[in-house]
Amino acid sequence: MAEQLSEILERAEEAIERRDEKLVRELCEDLHHADLAELYEDIEPEERVFLIRLLGVEKFSDVLAELPDTLIEETLDSFQPDQQREILDSLPDDDRVDILQDVSDSKRRDYLELLDEETRKDTRTLLRYGEETAGGRMTTQIGKILAKMTVKEAIDHLRGELDSTGTLARIFVVDEENKLIGKIRLRDLAFNAWDVAVQDLVQDIDHSILATADQEDAAKMISRYDMLILPIVDESNRLLGVITADDAFEILEEESTEDIEKGAGISGDQSEETYLNTSVASHFKRRCGWLVILAFLAILSGFVMMRFEHTLMEVYLLSLFLPMVVAAGGNTGGQASTMVIRAMALGELDPEDTRRVAWKEMRLGLLLGALLAVIIGIFAVFAPPALQFTLPDEVNFTQFGVTVAIALGAQVATSTLIGALLPIGARAIKMDPAVIAAPAITTIVDVSGMVIYFTVARSILGV
Amino acid sequence: MAEQLSEILERAEEAIERRDEKLVRELCEDLHHADLAELYEDIEPEERVFLIRLLGVEKFSDVLAELPDTLIEETLDSFQPDQQREILDSLPDDDRVDILQDVSDSKRRDYLELLDEETRKDTRTLLRYGEETAGGRMTTQIGKILAKMTVKEAIDHLRGELDSTGTLARIFVVDEENKLIGKIRLRDLAFNAWDVAVQDLVQDIDHSILATADQEDAAKMISRYDMLILPIVDESNRLLGVITADDAFEILEEESTEDIEKGAGISGDQSEETYLNTSVASHFKRRCGWLVILAFLAILSGFVMMRFEHTLMEVYLLSLFLPMVVAAGGNTGGQASTMVIRAMALGELDPEDTRRVAWKEMRLGLLLGALLAVIIGIFAVFAPPALQFTLPDEVNFTQFGVTVAIALGAQVATSTLIGALLPIGARAIKMDPAVIAAPAITTIVDVSGMVIYFTVARSILGV
Repeated sequence: MAEQLSEILERAEEAIERRDEKLVRELCEDLHHADLAELYEDIEPEERVFLIRLLGVEKFSDVLAELPDTLIEETLDSFQPDQQREILDSLPDDDRVDILQDVSDSKRRDYLELLDEETRKDTRTLLRYGEETAGGRMTTQIGKILAKMTVKEAIDHLRGELDSTGTLARIFVVDEENKLIGKIRLRDLAFNAWDVAVQDLVQDIDHSILATADQEDAAKMISRYDMLILPIVDESNRLLGVITADDAFEILEEESTEDIEKGAGISGDQSEETYLNTSVASHFKRRCGWLVILAFLAILSGFVMMRFEHTLMEVYLLSLFLPMVVAAGGNTGGQASTMVIRAMALGELDPEDTRRVAWKEMRLGLLLGALLAVIIGIFAVFAPPALQFTLPDEVNFTQFGVTVAIALGAQVATSTLIGALLPIGARAIKMDPAVIAAPAITTIVDVSGMVIYFTVARSILGV
Repeated sequence: MAEQLSEILERAEEAIERRDEKLVRELCEDLHHADLAELYEDIEPEERVFLIRLLGVEKFSDVLAELPDTLIEETLDSFQPDQQREILDSLPDDDRVDILQDVSDSKRRDYLELLDEETRKDTRTLLRYGEETAGGRMTTQIGKILAKMTVKEAIDHLRGELDSTGTLARIFVVDEENKLIGKIRLRDLAFNAWDVAVQDLVQDIDHSILATADQEDAAKMISRYDMLILPIVDESNRLLGVITADDAFEILEEESTEDIEKGAGISGDQSEETYLNTSVASHFKRRCGWLVILAFLAILSGFVMMRFEHTLMEVYLLSLFLPMVVAAGGNTGGQASTMVIRAMALGELDPEDTRRVAWKEMRLGLLLGALLAVIIGIFAVFAPPALQFTLPDEVNFTQFGVTVAIALGAQVATSTLIGALLPIGARAIKMDPAVIAAPAITTIVDVSGMVIYFTVARSILGV
């Protein structure tokens, strides 16, 4: 299926390149608008004009809602004003708001002018909520009935609004002041006698969320409680709109990508464009910040090396295991921080759990340190003489192996603890724990690794 | 809201500790089963028995379905056989199958014996699909009607099955051989005359998936196409069941966590238990594998240091920037691999795109390398003399700074390219790209960084 799809998209791309109208139309006919959006992104700008013209305005409005922010304005601009109106009119209001949030202020005014008065007013209200809030993501097109209606009245009311209503998977029941009273399932209406009062069928609302809440909280609620639709209310519990499961998918995917990218020291908002369509300049901007900071931090390791010049000069064989001891700390610290950051993102760790995390990671660090110390320690006793590396006369290979083992064990144990506790510390001072990225932890434990290695060497080997 | 919840859970925990039955019952009454499952996980084993007894069998069956795999068997075992039957009977069949997949073979046989014949037969059929397949996740309790029915017959038919049907958000239409013909919305039945033929209302199915397909593909399809329910079919297009949006949330969250963990060199399946409830032994097992491999790989860097002993001895000041040059490669390589791996996970990169990725990352690597080279190069010319570090007479600080700058630029440029291309190479040989974790790339580019740094130093400084 997936293979089939990528084949169709590839054939469509080639057909567009050849300007083969008939074939393009044929291939695109059965494509979902999400697939068409992918196709649109993958082709050249001048080919995009061709594709838009071919698909027609009506079909293209769905595609537009799936495009990344950065393509929205130029795409919408390639239409005539009356076509723009047609597109904006035909979109569900959450998609329309989403699109208007992505264009420049002056364009937004122009586009709003195109809409009829009522739509414009509703859209303006929605635009007031921030892009990252539940209100900014909601749709106001919902199935809504009054508690005092009968089943027949409710069905008649809903029938009248069928066209403008996105989904009837949940129907909400409100009082005369639009305050949310409960919900009802379409099946309860469909399978009941017409004179039954809606009020007798209404079920309690278990979860709703404020319009000003973070969109991520709304998405997590939908996912946690297996909901299809989450009602959005204002402070007086008046029903403003809903967020649906498909919005939640989008929100959660964006958040996952952001967390993954932060973990690698990539800053800034996740680009909504695909990797290939993001410009080199914007990739550059997101990556360079941490790199420069980390480069200066890493020079601290160099200072430690300078400080222990004498030790390394005396027993140069120490350099055989120096990079490994340092790197092992980076690896275990990175693992520990990844585990803890993910657990925090999934809401598993409260601030009170810090001591339990420390206790767990301390034991883990000691175990991992002991394991590596034994394996690499044995290697360090027997491999260097076998490879005919030499030591100064006053030092023997057993002492050398013990040095490597102890330093490695200590480095792994401390780095594990540092990796686990730094993100928790970051959260305690209200920093986003995800920015304590693995590279930052690696750089920090590199320094401690150098100190540990040379200090242990000095005291055991007496150099 | 979120704060309120964590407060309630905390108060409930304390009440359970004090065995305050009244308060526990009061606090738990309004909790969703997902919240009760979190509470259950967070308390001590002997308190769990208390909580189960208090909640009662009926309420607890929903909680059971939300528990992590490792807790299922011991929890179910704490009930009497007739309670076990009650629990298993009351669960939707996908949850029942999920639970039976998580217990030992002998227990599974015991539990199956408890079920009535029909349920047992259905459950056995579902158990045949692998746990990671679409079939292993599906529920067979769906709204299903025959194409030849009228609206009235369809409603009567659905009414009869209301109890056993999970959701009627989509109703599927099949022919007499159970082959999937199309779908229909409950609203189309509810708002149409009773003598209309279902046939005339049926809509095409745009997407369905084979029961043997990967569960991740099913989840991605639901997310991509904004679906609530995805029908699962066999090779003859016979309707077997459905996967719903809430299953998709679970699947996608598991996959995200797995990708994040793999990226830090943590192997094995993601634990379904929370971080704190996972034993030290199982954390240890997942982390130690890569650590040992990477430790041995990192010794290669040590070999390079041994090989260039003379260079480092002659100009010991090189050690001031050695760790930084090496680490900068690890950081940029890690960023590039993270970007590429995520783009592949989101389905943005096809194998044909390799050249475009290489071209993009080559430019990025050169830009990032140039930026760092200039900044750190200037620092390397002026900082060491200011700090009263010395160089041998035949070398001056300008040459030294140029050395650092060129080596750093070259290291960053090559590491960026290596980081981007290794995951693509891994996929080409059918390896999971996510296991080319950042630590592995760091270790590899550490070696190349050492070689680059000393080689550049040797040729510019003549040592």
